[in-house]
Amino acid sequence: MGGSLLMALRSRSPRTRLGAWARKTRAIEELKARGLLDFGATDVADVARQTELVVLCLPVDQMEEISAAIKSALPAGSVVTDVGSVKKSIVDSLEKIFTGEASFVGSHPMCGSEEAGLAAARPDLYENAMCVVTPTPQSRDAALRVVEALWRTAGARTVIMSPGEHDRAAASVSHLPHVVAALLVETVFGDNPKFRDLCAGGFRDTTRIAAGSPEIWTAILSSNRKEVVATLDRFGVALAEVRAALERDDKQAIRNFLAEAVRHRAEIFPRT
Amino acid sequence: MGGSLLMALRSRSPRTRLGAWARKTRAIEELKARGLLDFGATDVADVARQTELVVLCLPVDQMEEISAAIKSALPAGSVVTDVGSVKKSIVDSLEKIFTGEASFVGSHPMCGSEEAGLAAARPDLYENAMCVVTPTPQSRDAALRVVEALWRTAGARTVIMSPGEHDRAAASVSHLPHVVAALLVETVFGDNPKFRDLCAGGFRDTTRIAAGSPEIWTAILSSNRKEVVATLDRFGVALAEVRAALERDDKQAIRNFLAEAVRHRAEIFPRT
Repeated sequence: MGGSLLMALRSRSPRTRLGAWARKTRAIEELKARGLLDFGATDVADVARQTELVVLCLPVDQMEEISAAIKSALPAGSVVTDVGSVKKSIVDSLEKIFTGEASFVGSHPMCGSEEAGLAAARPDLYENAMCVVTPTPQSRDAALRVVEALWRTAGARTVIMSPGEHDRAAASVSHLPHVVAALLVETVFGDNPKFRDLCAGGFRDTTRIAAGSPEIWTAILSSNRKEVVATLDRFGVALAEVRAALERDDKQAIRNFLAEAVRHRAEIFPRT
Repeated sequence: MGGSLLMALRSRSPRTRLGAWARKTRAIEELKARGLLDFGATDVADVARQTELVVLCLPVDQMEEISAAIKSALPAGSVVTDVGSVKKSIVDSLEKIFTGEASFVGSHPMCGSEEAGLAAARPDLYENAMCVVTPTPQSRDAALRVVEALWRTAGARTVIMSPGEHDRAAASVSHLPHVVAALLVETVFGDNPKFRDLCAGGFRDTTRIAAGSPEIWTAILSSNRKEVVATLDRFGVALAEVRAALERDDKQAIRNFLAEAVRHRAEIFPRT
């Protein structure tokens, strides 16, 4: 997410000074070698001192630690945002950290893939992506405007939601599909080993997101577990209904269910 | 499936005489215009009379009707197979129809997509696809060899399973994912309409197969409902386990589940 953002900003806003922090010197050197950095270091406070707009591109469970480490180094008037896949827990804790000179407004660009690292970065990742920005009653208007402008500069569209509303949406459109894709893999794998050879393109696509990092996804699912459990329950109720229709061989009900899914998917993706 | 098969055979076995039956004259004319047919008609018995190897490329619920219509027209020694996505019900009924001069052996090439019709046909559809061939104790060895040779000529690899074993495999690798993809669409669609805009590439891929024809899939799911219900139940048990792990925030269990899915998926698709 961070590498793609640097690439997007470098090409779409060439005069913006770009900096980065990373844990490893090699990562900073690689970004510099690609011409993506004006400054960068492995000392996070050192980088923070030179930064007016911070984008925390970190696993969900590392946001708080890094925020605490940069808090007192940031120049007055700085704005901080993040790209975390959950918002309520992050916004709750980071709003408490950035209370003084710096202001925090959360964001979540709904793009990315199961790949990670600079090798997977691409300059058009954010183009036409939808980015949810999640201000609260505590947010400063000026900071919100800066964060919205950032994502638009990177090529994304923005939508405003409360952190809680975002988390419910993410559970539905992203976290549930991830759990379900992993369950599909495990259902096949737990069956006759001979069956694995029969997995073709459809199965590959349906389960692609299950290839994402277990560490990153454990943190996401754990942070949003209330909404994910609620969404799993709604999914489970619908699953039981389809199961019942199959058991009584109610072709009309099965057909209606499948036809609605075709129609609704076409509404969600009008150009597919 | 039929259009792609004609294209594959025309290019990989140019001296084979190819014929087709279709309900509409226009379909036959289109196939002829593409140079894919040596003969073809909308009268099914007329086509059957000239055919030594019949491949029934039909929705699962139309196999029996067409088989009955061609039975007495087929030359002595003809072999009949099909491409139906379920096997036990089809093999049971078609073995009873083709008892005399013609022999039936079922097949199911595990490829294809949510698209249908000649516009979606492509000559490489069967290349490296896995085709399940499902002989029974009643099958003639010579007929089995003809059917296996057909799919290899089209570019596919073949694997032998009993019809029942195929149906259990198909429930696991194909029918369950289809139901689940449709359920994912319906879960998002039943939620706040605002959330639909957040569906990105991951959701699109995960639900792609749900765009398949409701009529064709109703017939498939209904014919294989016993195995599909059993597979839905296994999936449901695993779903309940993940739900419980999330509810008690058991990060270790969630991480293990996700990590196994990543590892197992890599075993299923070694080159992805």
